[in-house]
Amino acid sequence: MKVEIWSDVACPWCFIGKRRFESALENFEHKDEVEVQWRSYQLDPTLPQHYDGTETEYLSEIKGMPQQQVRQMFEHVTAQAAGEGLSYDFDKIVVANSFMAHRFMHLAKEHGRMDAAKEALLSGHFEHGEDIGDIDYLVRTGVVLGLDEPEVREALAGDKYSAEVRADIAEARALGVNGVPFFVLDRKYGISGAQPAEVFGRALQQAWGERSPLTVLPGNANDGATCGPEGCN
Amino acid sequence: MKVEIWSDVACPWCFIGKRRFESALENFEHKDEVEVQWRSYQLDPTLPQHYDGTETEYLSEIKGMPQQQVRQMFEHVTAQAAGEGLSYDFDKIVVANSFMAHRFMHLAKEHGRMDAAKEALLSGHFEHGEDIGDIDYLVRTGVVLGLDEPEVREALAGDKYSAEVRADIAEARALGVNGVPFFVLDRKYGISGAQPAEVFGRALQQAWGERSPLTVLPGNANDGATCGPEGCN
Repeated sequence: MKVEIWSDVACPWCFIGKRRFESALENFEHKDEVEVQWRSYQLDPTLPQHYDGTETEYLSEIKGMPQQQVRQMFEHVTAQAAGEGLSYDFDKIVVANSFMAHRFMHLAKEHGRMDAAKEALLSGHFEHGEDIGDIDYLVRTGVVLGLDEPEVREALAGDKYSAEVRADIAEARALGVNGVPFFVLDRKYGISGAQPAEVFGRALQQAWGERSPLTVLPGNANDGATCGPEGCN
Repeated sequence: MKVEIWSDVACPWCFIGKRRFESALENFEHKDEVEVQWRSYQLDPTLPQHYDGTETEYLSEIKGMPQQQVRQMFEHVTAQAAGEGLSYDFDKIVVANSFMAHRFMHLAKEHGRMDAAKEALLSGHFEHGEDIGDIDYLVRTGVVLGLDEPEVREALAGDKYSAEVRADIAEARALGVNGVPFFVLDRKYGISGAQPAEVFGRALQQAWGERSPLTVLPGNANDGATCGPEGCN
Protein backbone atom coordinates (compact mmCIF):
# COMPACT_ATOMS: atom_id res chain seq x y z
CA MET A 1 0.00 0.00 0.00
CA LYS A 2 1.24 3.43 -0.86
CA VAL A 3 0.76 6.58 1.18
CA GLU A 4 1.69 9.91 -0.37
CA ILE A 5 1.89 12.91 1.93
CA TRP A 6 1.81 16.38 0.47
CA SER A 7 3.36 18.80 2.90
CA ASP A 8 5.47 21.93 3.23
CA VAL A 9 8.44 22.54 5.50
CA ALA A 10 7.12 25.91 6.59
CA CYS A 11 3.88 24.34 7.80
CA PRO A 12 3.40 23.90 11.54
CA TRP A 13 0.60 21.34 11.22
CA CYS A 14 2.70 19.24 8.83
CA PHE A 15 5.23 18.28 11.53
CA ILE A 16 2.42 17.56 14.01
CA GLY A 17 0.62 15.54 11.33
CA LYS A 18 3.82 13.64 10.59
CA ARG A 19 4.03 12.52 14.23
CA ARG A 20 0.38 11.54 14.38
CA PHE A 21 0.57 9.58 11.15
CA GLU A 22 3.79 7.87 12.28
CA SER A 23 2.08 6.89 15.49
CA ALA A 24 -0.81 5.32 13.56
CA LEU A 25 1.57 3.57 11.18
CA GLU A 26 3.66 2.19 14.03
CA ASN A 27 0.55 0.48 15.38
CA PHE A 28 -0.65 -0.75 11.99
CA GLU A 29 -0.21 -4.49 11.62
CA HIS A 30 0.76 -4.28 7.95
CA LYS A 31 3.17 -1.38 8.44
CA ASP A 32 5.99 -3.25 6.68
CA GLU A 33 3.93 -3.26 3.50
CA VAL A 34 3.23 0.47 3.53
CA GLU A 35 5.39 2.70 1.37
CA VAL A 36 5.38 6.35 2.43
CA GLN A 37 6.29 8.99 -0.12
CA TRP A 38 6.70 12.67 0.72
CA ARG A 39 5.41 15.07 -1.92
CA SER A 40 6.22 18.76 -2.18
CA TYR A 41 3.76 21.58 -1.58
CA GLN A 42 4.31 25.28 -1.03
CA LEU A 43 1.87 27.14 1.17
CA ASP A 44 3.34 30.47 0.19
CA PRO A 45 5.38 30.48 -3.03
CA THR A 46 5.57 34.29 -2.77
CA LEU A 47 7.73 34.18 0.37
CA PRO A 48 11.02 35.98 -0.17
CA GLN A 49 14.21 33.92 -0.12
CA HIS A 50 14.96 35.67 3.17
CA TYR A 51 12.84 37.98 5.33
CA ASP A 52 14.46 40.02 8.09
CA GLY A 53 11.80 39.79 10.73
CA THR A 54 9.91 37.34 12.88
CA GLU A 55 7.17 35.03 11.65
CA THR A 56 4.71 37.15 13.63
CA GLU A 57 5.86 40.29 11.82
CA TYR A 58 5.69 38.58 8.45
CA LEU A 59 2.13 37.34 8.96
CA SER A 60 0.89 40.61 10.45
CA GLU A 61 2.75 43.08 8.22
CA ILE A 62 2.78 41.25 4.91
CA LYS A 63 -0.31 39.08 5.21
CA GLY A 64 -2.31 41.62 7.19
CA MET A 65 -3.28 39.31 10.05
CA PRO A 66 -3.80 41.02 13.43
CA GLN A 67 -0.75 40.43 15.68
CA GLN A 68 -2.99 39.24 18.49
CA GLN A 69 -4.54 36.59 16.22
CA VAL A 70 -1.13 35.43 15.03
CA ARG A 71 0.10 35.06 18.60
CA GLN A 72 -2.97 33.08 19.62
CA MET A 73 -2.52 30.80 16.62
CA PHE A 74 1.13 30.20 17.55
CA GLU A 75 0.21 29.44 21.16
CA HIS A 76 -2.39 26.92 20.08
CA VAL A 77 -0.05 25.24 17.59
CA THR A 78 2.83 25.19 20.09
CA ALA A 79 0.63 23.45 22.64
CA GLN A 80 -0.53 20.88 20.07
CA ALA A 81 3.07 20.30 19.01
CA ALA A 82 4.13 19.81 22.62
CA GLY A 83 1.46 17.11 22.86
CA GLU A 84 3.39 15.23 20.18
CA GLY A 85 6.74 15.78 21.90
CA LEU A 86 7.80 18.67 19.64
CA SER A 87 9.32 21.91 21.00
CA TYR A 88 8.20 24.65 18.63
CA ASP A 89 9.93 28.00 19.11
CA PHE A 90 8.11 30.61 17.00
CA ASP A 91 10.31 33.46 18.27
CA LYS A 92 13.35 31.86 16.65
CA ILE A 93 11.75 30.83 13.35
CA VAL A 94 13.56 32.14 10.27
CA VAL A 95 11.05 33.14 7.61
CA ALA A 96 12.25 31.75 4.29
CA ASN A 97 10.93 30.39 1.03
CA SER A 98 10.86 26.58 1.11
CA PHE A 99 11.50 25.91 -2.59
CA MET A 100 15.19 25.05 -2.21
CA ALA A 101 14.38 22.90 0.82
CA HIS A 102 11.96 20.91 -1.33
CA ARG A 103 14.64 20.47 -4.01
CA PHE A 104 16.95 19.24 -1.26
CA MET A 105 14.40 16.64 -0.19
CA HIS A 106 14.10 15.34 -3.75
CA LEU A 107 17.87 15.02 -3.87
CA ALA A 108 17.75 13.11 -0.57
CA LYS A 109 15.05 10.87 -2.06
CA GLU A 110 17.47 9.77 -4.72
CA HIS A 111 19.67 8.40 -1.95
CA GLY A 112 16.82 6.86 0.02
CA ARG A 113 17.01 9.59 2.68
CA MET A 114 13.87 11.61 2.00
CA ASP A 115 12.08 10.84 5.24
CA ALA A 116 15.22 11.68 7.23
CA ALA A 117 15.58 14.94 5.29
CA LYS A 118 11.95 15.88 5.93
CA GLU A 119 12.38 15.20 9.63
CA ALA A 120 15.64 17.19 9.83
CA LEU A 121 14.23 20.25 8.05
CA LEU A 122 10.98 20.35 10.02
CA SER A 123 12.90 20.09 13.27
CA GLY A 124 15.49 22.63 12.13
CA HIS A 125 12.78 25.10 11.11
CA PHE A 126 10.36 24.80 14.03
CA GLU A 127 12.57 23.74 16.91
CA HIS A 128 16.02 25.15 16.21
CA GLY A 129 15.63 28.41 14.30
CA GLU A 130 17.50 27.14 11.26
CA ASP A 131 17.23 28.95 7.92
CA ILE A 132 15.76 26.44 5.45
CA GLY A 133 16.44 28.91 2.61
CA ASP A 134 20.18 28.91 3.30
CA ILE A 135 22.25 26.67 1.06
CA ASP A 136 24.97 26.23 3.72
CA TYR A 137 22.44 24.93 6.24
CA LEU A 138 21.03 22.52 3.67
CA VAL A 139 24.51 21.29 2.68
CA ARG A 140 25.37 20.74 6.36
CA THR A 141 22.14 18.84 6.85
CA GLY A 142 22.90 16.74 3.78
CA VAL A 143 26.28 15.76 5.18
CA VAL A 144 24.66 14.72 8.47
CA LEU A 145 22.30 12.53 6.42
CA GLY A 146 25.26 10.88 4.71
CA LEU A 147 25.01 12.68 1.39
CA ASP A 148 28.02 13.83 -0.58
CA GLU A 149 28.82 17.50 0.21
CA PRO A 150 29.92 18.62 -3.30
CA GLU A 151 26.93 16.85 -4.88
CA VAL A 152 24.47 18.61 -2.57
CA ARG A 153 26.07 22.02 -3.06
CA GLU A 154 26.24 21.67 -6.83
CA ALA A 155 22.66 20.41 -7.11
CA LEU A 156 21.28 23.24 -4.97
CA ALA A 157 23.41 25.98 -6.57
CA GLY A 158 21.91 24.99 -9.93
CA ASP A 159 18.23 24.27 -10.50
CA LYS A 160 18.27 20.51 -10.05
CA TYR A 161 15.04 18.89 -8.85
CA SER A 162 13.02 22.05 -9.55
CA ALA A 163 10.98 20.08 -12.06
CA GLU A 164 10.19 17.41 -9.45
CA VAL A 165 9.03 20.00 -6.94
CA ARG A 166 6.82 21.71 -9.52
CA ALA A 167 5.42 18.37 -10.67
CA ASP A 168 4.43 17.50 -7.08
CA ILE A 169 2.70 20.84 -6.65
CA ALA A 170 0.89 20.45 -9.97
CA GLU A 171 -0.26 16.99 -8.96
CA ALA A 172 -1.61 18.31 -5.67
CA ARG A 173 -3.60 20.88 -7.61
CA ALA A 174 -4.93 18.17 -9.94
CA LEU A 175 -6.06 16.14 -6.91
CA GLY A 176 -7.85 19.15 -5.45
CA VAL A 177 -5.49 19.64 -2.52
CA ASN A 178 -5.76 23.16 -1.12
CA GLY A 179 -4.17 22.78 2.27
CA VAL A 180 -1.54 20.60 3.89
CA PRO A 181 -0.70 18.17 5.30
CA PHE A 182 -2.74 16.04 2.89
CA PHE A 183 -2.50 12.26 2.97
CA VAL A 184 -3.40 10.08 -0.03
CA LEU A 185 -3.83 6.33 0.43
CA ASP A 186 -3.46 4.22 -2.70
CA ARG A 187 -4.81 7.16 -4.73
CA LYS A 188 -8.20 6.19 -3.40
CA TYR A 189 -8.65 7.97 -0.09
CA GLY A 190 -7.58 11.43 0.93
CA ILE A 191 -7.22 12.72 4.48
CA SER A 192 -6.89 16.43 5.05
CA GLY A 193 -5.03 17.83 8.01
CA ALA A 194 -3.13 16.75 11.10
CA GLN A 195 -5.87 14.36 12.20
CA PRO A 196 -5.58 12.38 15.42
CA ALA A 197 -3.67 9.10 15.07
CA GLU A 198 -6.96 7.14 15.38
CA VAL A 199 -8.29 8.75 12.19
CA PHE A 200 -5.14 7.73 10.30
CA GLY A 201 -5.31 4.27 11.84
CA ARG A 202 -8.90 3.72 10.69
CA ALA A 203 -8.05 5.01 7.21
CA LEU A 204 -5.08 2.63 6.94
CA GLN A 205 -7.35 -0.27 7.94
CA GLN A 206 -10.02 0.74 5.46
CA ALA A 207 -7.66 1.22 2.53
CA TRP A 208 -5.88 -2.04 3.38
CA GLY A 209 -9.14 -3.98 3.46
CA GLU A 210 -10.14 -2.62 0.08
CA ARG A 211 -6.84 -2.86 -1.71
CA SER A 212 -7.13 -4.97 -4.81
CA PRO A 213 -4.62 -6.72 -7.00
CA LEU A 214 -4.32 -5.64 -10.61
CA THR A 215 -6.98 -6.96 -12.91
CA VAL A 216 -5.10 -8.27 -15.92
CA LEU A 217 -7.31 -7.56 -18.90
CA PRO A 218 -7.77 -10.32 -21.44
CA GLY A 219 -5.94 -9.56 -24.65
CA ASN A 220 -5.64 -11.26 -27.94
CA ALA A 221 -3.98 -14.59 -27.20
CA ASN A 222 -2.28 -14.81 -30.59
CA ASP A 223 -0.83 -11.35 -30.27
CA GLY A 224 0.10 -9.83 -26.97
CA ALA A 225 3.57 -11.30 -27.13
CA THR A 226 5.89 -10.81 -24.21
CA CYS A 227 9.47 -11.54 -23.41
CA GLY A 228 10.33 -13.26 -20.15
CA PRO A 229 13.42 -14.66 -18.49
CA GLU A 230 13.33 -17.63 -20.89
CA GLY A 231 13.06 -15.64 -24.08
CA CYS A 232 10.19 -14.24 -26.11
CA ASN A 233 7.01 -15.91 -27.27
CA MET B 1 -4.96 8.95 -15.80
CA LYS B 2 -1.60 7.35 -15.32
CA VAL B 3 -0.13 4.57 -17.44
CA GLU B 4 3.05 2.88 -16.25
CA ILE B 5 4.87 0.67 -18.71
CA TRP B 6 7.41 -1.81 -17.46
CA SER B 7 9.79 -2.70 -20.24
CA ASP B 8 13.37 -3.56 -21.06
CA VAL B 9 15.57 -2.14 -23.80
CA ALA B 10 16.75 -5.57 -24.87
CA CYS B 11 13.17 -6.72 -25.47
CA PRO B 12 11.95 -6.96 -29.04
CA TRP B 13 8.26 -6.96 -28.14
CA CYS B 14 8.70 -3.86 -26.00
CA PHE B 15 9.45 -1.61 -28.99
CA ILE B 16 6.56 -3.15 -30.96
CA GLY B 17 4.30 -2.74 -27.93
CA LYS B 18 5.42 0.88 -27.59
CA ARG B 19 4.26 1.61 -31.14
CA ARG B 20 0.94 -0.17 -30.68
CA PHE B 21 0.24 1.62 -27.40
CA GLU B 22 1.22 4.98 -28.93
CA SER B 23 -1.17 4.32 -31.78
CA ALA B 24 -4.00 3.63 -29.33
CA LEU B 25 -3.12 6.68 -27.25
CA GLU B 26 -3.00 8.91 -30.31
CA ASN B 27 -6.60 7.98 -31.07
CA PHE B 28 -7.78 8.28 -27.47
CA GLU B 29 -9.94 11.34 -26.97
CA HIS B 30 -8.54 12.09 -23.50
CA LYS B 31 -4.90 11.58 -24.52
CA ASP B 32 -3.88 14.96 -23.12
CA GLU B 33 -4.87 13.80 -19.66
CA VAL B 34 -2.86 10.58 -19.80
CA GLU B 35 0.55 10.56 -18.12
CA VAL B 36 2.85 7.80 -19.38
CA GLN B 37 5.70 6.66 -17.16
CA TRP B 38 8.34 4.18 -18.27
CA ARG B 39 9.46 1.75 -15.60
CA SER B 40 12.58 -0.40 -15.67
CA TYR B 41 12.65 -4.16 -16.04
CA GLN B 42 15.48 -6.52 -16.88
CA LEU B 43 14.66 -9.69 -18.76
CA ASP B 44 18.14 -11.04 -18.22
CA PRO B 45 20.09 -9.44 -15.37
CA THR B 46 22.78 -12.11 -15.85
CA LEU B 47 23.78 -10.77 -19.27
CA PRO B 48 27.44 -9.80 -19.37
CA GLN B 49 28.32 -6.14 -19.80
CA HIS B 50 29.54 -7.12 -23.27
CA TYR B 51 29.28 -10.40 -25.19
CA ASP B 52 31.39 -10.95 -28.26
CA GLY B 53 28.94 -12.79 -30.43
CA THR B 54 25.58 -12.43 -32.12
CA GLU B 55 22.24 -12.51 -30.35
CA THR B 56 21.63 -15.87 -32.03
CA GLU B 57 24.86 -17.26 -30.62
CA TYR B 58 24.09 -15.91 -27.17
CA LEU B 59 20.62 -17.44 -27.04
CA SER B 60 21.73 -20.78 -28.49
CA GLU B 61 25.09 -21.18 -26.71
CA ILE B 62 24.37 -19.58 -23.34
CA LYS B 63 20.63 -20.12 -23.04
CA GLY B 64 20.63 -23.48 -24.83
CA MET B 65 17.93 -22.64 -27.35
CA PRO B 66 18.19 -24.47 -30.72
CA GLN B 67 19.62 -22.10 -33.37
CA GLN B 68 16.78 -22.97 -35.71
CA GLN B 69 14.20 -21.95 -33.11
CA VAL B 70 16.04 -18.68 -32.40
CA ARG B 71 16.11 -17.82 -36.08
CA GLN B 72 12.42 -18.54 -36.51
CA MET B 73 11.66 -16.36 -33.50
CA PHE B 74 13.71 -13.51 -34.95
CA GLU B 75 11.98 -13.80 -38.32
CA HIS B 76 8.57 -13.68 -36.71
CA VAL B 77 9.47 -10.69 -34.54
CA THR B 78 11.13 -8.86 -37.45
CA ALA B 79 7.96 -9.26 -39.53
CA GLN B 80 5.78 -7.99 -36.68
CA ALA B 81 8.13 -5.05 -36.14
CA ALA B 82 8.00 -4.22 -39.84
CA GLY B 83 4.21 -4.09 -39.51
CA GLU B 84 4.73 -1.21 -37.07
CA GLY B 85 7.24 0.54 -39.32
CA LEU B 86 10.31 -0.69 -37.41
CA SER B 87 13.39 -2.12 -39.18
CA TYR B 88 14.82 -4.73 -36.81
CA ASP B 89 18.26 -6.03 -37.75
CA PHE B 90 19.07 -9.03 -35.54
CA ASP B 91 22.39 -9.70 -37.28
CA LYS B 92 23.73 -6.35 -36.09
CA ILE B 93 22.39 -6.47 -32.52
CA VAL B 94 25.04 -5.99 -29.85
CA VAL B 95 24.35 -8.25 -26.89
CA ALA B 96 24.77 -6.18 -23.71
CA ASN B 97 23.39 -5.90 -20.23
CA SER B 98 20.72 -3.17 -20.07
CA PHE B 99 21.30 -1.99 -16.50
CA MET B 100 23.30 1.13 -17.41
CA ALA B 101 20.80 1.94 -20.14
CA HIS B 102 18.03 1.89 -17.52
CA ARG B 103 20.06 4.20 -15.27
CA PHE B 104 20.47 6.50 -18.29
CA MET B 105 16.71 6.59 -18.79
CA HIS B 106 16.14 7.58 -15.17
CA LEU B 107 18.65 10.39 -15.62
CA ALA B 108 16.76 11.48 -18.74
CA LYS B 109 13.53 11.37 -16.73
CA GLU B 110 14.93 14.01 -14.41
CA HIS B 111 15.15 16.32 -17.43
CA GLY B 112 11.76 15.36 -18.83
CA ARG B 113 13.33 13.31 -21.63
CA MET B 114 12.56 9.76 -20.59
CA ASP B 115 10.27 8.90 -23.47
CA ALA B 116 12.77 10.29 -25.97
CA ALA B 117 15.54 8.27 -24.29
CA LYS B 118 13.49 5.08 -24.40
CA GLU B 119 12.76 5.62 -28.08
CA ALA B 120 16.42 6.37 -28.89
CA LEU B 121 17.77 3.29 -27.10
CA LEU B 122 15.20 0.89 -28.54
CA SER B 123 15.91 2.17 -32.02
CA GLY B 124 19.67 2.14 -31.44
CA HIS B 125 19.56 -1.44 -30.16
CA PHE B 126 17.17 -3.06 -32.64
CA GLU B 127 17.59 -0.98 -35.77
CA HIS B 128 21.14 0.39 -35.70
CA GLY B 129 23.37 -2.12 -33.93
CA GLU B 130 24.31 0.28 -31.16
CA ASP B 131 25.84 -1.00 -27.93
CA ILE B 132 23.48 -0.01 -25.12
CA GLY B 133 26.07 -1.16 -22.56
CA ASP B 134 28.65 1.33 -23.82
CA ILE B 135 28.95 4.52 -21.82
CA ASP B 136 30.19 6.52 -24.84
CA TYR B 137 27.11 5.57 -26.86
CA LEU B 138 24.85 6.56 -23.97
CA VAL B 139 26.66 9.88 -23.48
CA ARG B 140 26.35 10.62 -27.22
CA THR B 141 22.65 9.78 -27.07
CA GLY B 142 22.25 12.03 -24.05
CA VAL B 143 23.79 14.96 -25.92
CA VAL B 144 21.41 14.39 -28.84
CA LEU B 145 18.55 14.53 -26.33
CA GLY B 146 19.81 17.86 -25.01
CA LEU B 147 21.36 16.59 -21.80
CA ASP B 148 24.60 17.94 -20.40
CA GLU B 149 27.54 15.75 -21.50
CA PRO B 150 29.63 15.91 -18.28
CA GLU B 151 26.55 15.28 -16.16
CA VAL B 152 25.61 12.16 -18.14
CA ARG B 153 29.15 10.78 -18.10
CA GLU B 154 29.62 11.41 -14.39
CA ALA B 155 26.25 9.91 -13.48
CA LEU B 156 26.85 6.76 -15.53
CA ALA B 157 30.48 6.32 -14.46
CA GLY B 158 29.25 6.25 -10.85
CA ASP B 159 26.22 4.32 -9.66
CA LYS B 160 23.62 7.05 -9.90
CA TYR B 161 20.03 5.96 -10.50
CA SER B 162 20.83 2.33 -9.67
CA ALA B 163 18.41 2.54 -6.75
CA GLU B 164 15.64 3.79 -9.05
CA VAL B 165 16.18 0.93 -11.49
CA ARG B 166 16.15 -1.65 -8.71
CA ALA B 167 13.04 -0.09 -7.16
CA ASP B 168 11.20 -0.36 -10.49
CA ILE B 169 12.16 -4.01 -10.84
CA ALA B 170 11.12 -4.74 -7.25
CA GLU B 171 7.79 -3.05 -7.87
CA ALA B 172 7.22 -5.15 -10.98
CA ARG B 173 7.82 -8.26 -8.90
CA ALA B 174 5.38 -7.02 -6.25
CA LEU B 175 2.74 -6.51 -8.94
CA GLY B 176 3.27 -10.01 -10.27
CA VAL B 177 4.85 -8.97 -13.56
CA ASN B 178 6.84 -11.81 -15.09
CA GLY B 179 7.19 -10.69 -18.67
CA VAL B 180 7.35 -7.40 -20.55
CA PRO B 181 6.08 -5.13 -21.92
CA PHE B 182 3.55 -4.82 -19.12
CA PHE B 183 1.13 -1.90 -19.01
CA VAL B 184 -0.55 -0.73 -15.81
CA LEU B 185 -3.46 1.71 -15.96
CA ASP B 186 -4.15 3.71 -12.81
CA ARG B 187 -2.80 0.78 -10.79
CA LYS B 188 -6.09 -0.92 -11.51
CA TYR B 189 -5.73 -2.74 -14.79
CA GLY B 190 -2.76 -4.62 -16.17
CA ILE B 191 -2.17 -5.55 -19.80
CA SER B 192 0.49 -8.07 -20.62
CA GLY B 193 2.33 -8.01 -23.91
CA ALA B 194 2.46 -6.13 -27.19
CA GLN B 195 -1.28 -6.32 -27.71
CA PRO B 196 -2.93 -4.89 -30.81
CA ALA B 197 -3.72 -1.17 -30.58
CA GLU B 198 -7.45 -1.98 -30.26
CA VAL B 199 -6.82 -3.87 -27.01
CA PHE B 200 -4.97 -0.85 -25.58
CA GLY B 201 -7.68 1.45 -26.87
CA ARG B 202 -10.45 -0.52 -25.14
CA ALA B 203 -8.42 -0.64 -21.91
CA LEU B 204 -7.88 3.13 -21.97
CA GLN B 205 -11.63 3.65 -22.44
CA GLN B 206 -12.48 1.26 -19.64
CA ALA B 207 -10.00 2.71 -17.14
CA TRP B 208 -11.07 6.24 -18.07
CA GLY B 209 -14.73 5.44 -17.53
CA GLU B 210 -14.01 3.98 -14.11
CA ARG B 211 -11.55 6.53 -12.84
CA SER B 212 -12.72 8.06 -9.61
CA PRO B 213 -11.77 11.17 -7.72
CA LEU B 214 -10.28 10.80 -4.27
CA THR B 215 -12.72 10.10 -1.49
CA VAL B 216 -11.78 12.51 1.26
CA LEU B 217 -12.41 10.66 4.50
CA PRO B 218 -14.22 12.51 7.25
CA GLY B 219 -11.87 13.38 10.09
CA ASN B 220 -12.33 15.01 13.40
CA ALA B 221 -13.50 18.53 12.64
CA ASN B 222 -11.91 20.05 15.73
CA ASP B 223 -8.57 18.48 14.99
CA GLY B 224 -7.38 17.82 11.49
CA ALA B 225 -5.87 21.24 11.22
CA THR B 226 -4.33 22.31 7.96
CA CYS B 227 -2.37 25.23 6.66
CA GLY B 228 -3.45 26.88 3.45
CA PRO B 229 -2.45 29.93 1.43
CA GLU B 230 -4.16 32.18 3.97
CA GLY B 231 -2.50 30.71 7.06
CA CYS B 232 -3.27 27.85 9.39
CA ASN B 233 -6.50 27.00 11.13
